[in-house]
Amino acid sequence: MACELMTIIFQKTAIIGLGLIGASIGQAMLDRKLTHAIVACDRCQDSLSIALDEGLIVEGFHDVNALLDAHGDVDLLVLAMPARAIADILPTLLKLKLDNRIASSAIIVDVASTKQNILQAIINACRYKQKPYDFLNFVPSHPIAGAEKSGVTARSGDLFVNHQFIICQDERMTASVDAFDKIQKLWQGIGANVSMMSPQKHDEILSLTSHLPHLLSYALTYQLAKDDENLNIFRYAAGGFRDFSRISASSPIMWHDIFLANKEAVLKGLDTYQAILNELKTAILNDNSDELLTTFETAKNAREYFGRLLVEKEKLKNGL
Amino acid sequence: MACELMTIIFQKTAIIGLGLIGASIGQAMLDRKLTHAIVACDRCQDSLSIALDEGLIVEGFHDVNALLDAHGDVDLLVLAMPARAIADILPTLLKLKLDNRIASSAIIVDVASTKQNILQAIINACRYKQKPYDFLNFVPSHPIAGAEKSGVTARSGDLFVNHQFIICQDERMTASVDAFDKIQKLWQGIGANVSMMSPQKHDEILSLTSHLPHLLSYALTYQLAKDDENLNIFRYAAGGFRDFSRISASSPIMWHDIFLANKEAVLKGLDTYQAILNELKTAILNDNSDELLTTFETAKNAREYFGRLLVEKEKLKNGL
Repeated sequence: MACELMTIIFQKTAIIGLGLIGASIGQAMLDRKLTHAIVACDRCQDSLSIALDEGLIVEGFHDVNALLDAHGDVDLLVLAMPARAIADILPTLLKLKLDNRIASSAIIVDVASTKQNILQAIINACRYKQKPYDFLNFVPSHPIAGAEKSGVTARSGDLFVNHQFIICQDERMTASVDAFDKIQKLWQGIGANVSMMSPQKHDEILSLTSHLPHLLSYALTYQLAKDDENLNIFRYAAGGFRDFSRISASSPIMWHDIFLANKEAVLKGLDTYQAILNELKTAILNDNSDELLTTFETAKNAREYFGRLLVEKEKLKNGL
Repeated sequence: MACELMTIIFQKTAIIGLGLIGASIGQAMLDRKLTHAIVACDRCQDSLSIALDEGLIVEGFHDVNALLDAHGDVDLLVLAMPARAIADILPTLLKLKLDNRIASSAIIVDVASTKQNILQAIINACRYKQKPYDFLNFVPSHPIAGAEKSGVTARSGDLFVNHQFIICQDERMTASVDAFDKIQKLWQGIGANVSMMSPQKHDEILSLTSHLPHLLSYALTYQLAKDDENLNIFRYAAGGFRDFSRISASSPIMWHDIFLANKEAVLKGLDTYQAILNELKTAILNDNSDELLTTFETAKNAREYFGRLLVEKEKLKNGL
């Protein structure tokens, strides 16, 4: 299977945004010979210089127009920026496409953690096109992987091995079967397990497994900070709080964007969460031991199942 | 300073409950020569056998009466069981004390994670004594330390180094100044930083830094488990959820006990938390970027401050 996957090659890949995810995708493709060359676009000169010095890219640019002036022959564009920056760049990409400065066969993918808003941004940018996704050859993707560290220096060609890579597709994307097929093989080629689902389903699932935990963690760390302006209270926090609150040190801008981009699903998940909290509150108030124990047992069993998934994933990774 | 602390020696220490905390206190005391010998009481024969084989204790018992029959000369009793088990054993301890089978100078400490309920249990058990804490020579303590693992085999003599060890004291404990002084020196002797505070303050602080995060983590893992009976949703969870949810695999019985034992403070903290969640919900609904960013920035700064505390603690520990 690995050999078969090795035959899928993009001649030249453009990565827009050389952060952890973009740089790791590039590294994974190079390591597995899935592309001949990579060019990149990033606002940060240091990131480009490092990527150039370390052989990740053959040329770096600050602007996507300049990149396509020099490399009109790219056949894959990976948009690896935050959701808002992707929405901002779409009109430019559309214009480049209309001007035939992006090859008609070139595929564009994004890897943002919200999907309905990206697709809406495409509709907004290409509103006079009947099938904007097909016109752009656009394949919305999202890797369920990340790391503590960020930036090009933290990249790993194995970041996606045995992680889920979600590709979103619905009835609005009809003509680009070939593009979807190629991208599915690409993500499989860098070691990921591909799941296909609708953008709506994606946003619902991620609102629960990723967006809500961030909001809940931010809220408690905020509560502690407000409770004790001198922050002495943190002297009395141990390992449980350490892990629970780790994600509340995440980028405020990035998470602000995500909560607003996935507003509907996040608020729906929050409603359910608040209902559960109210039930637990009543159970504590009334010494309802049965309800407390049943809820905690269900959670513990589910967390242990999740723990086993993580161990399996790690074993598979190390066995490769 | 270390030499001065070494002079505080308990002739014979009884540890009731050879779990992680009890066994680690014993190990820390042995390592630093703060006691000549340790005897222990535990329901689990394996724990006692291991502790005996590995030289942690000189004799093990299943019952505190049998322990005191054989070792009436213990001058320190460490109650290292869950809060509920401590309440259950108090009438027995009182009877042993009244029968002079516990020396009048012997000190009793507990290390449970809730304090007002322990003190109430003492008042209930000794209700015809005017100063029950003083009569028992009781020093309520709580180490802010723990580990992923549990049980006697997971013990570490350095578990408490540079961690906070809280001693609770209020106006009801008057005569036992000497006992408090000795226990303070004991916890300092095993490397901890001692904080003194009222039982009420203790329970308020811990409700926020420890009890509430456990409740919130249980609630979200429960929500995900209920949302998808097949638990497939966990395939789409990554590192953020992993850390946030780790504590939802904690012992349901133990945490059920803690939430009921510290009901008042937990519910008060939960009220404030729910108010903050409602504010965040409104801010998301109304695209109130300023409020979202300010809240997340405050949380991020506080979490980074906490992160620096953890690093300092680790450095101090490694430098010892």
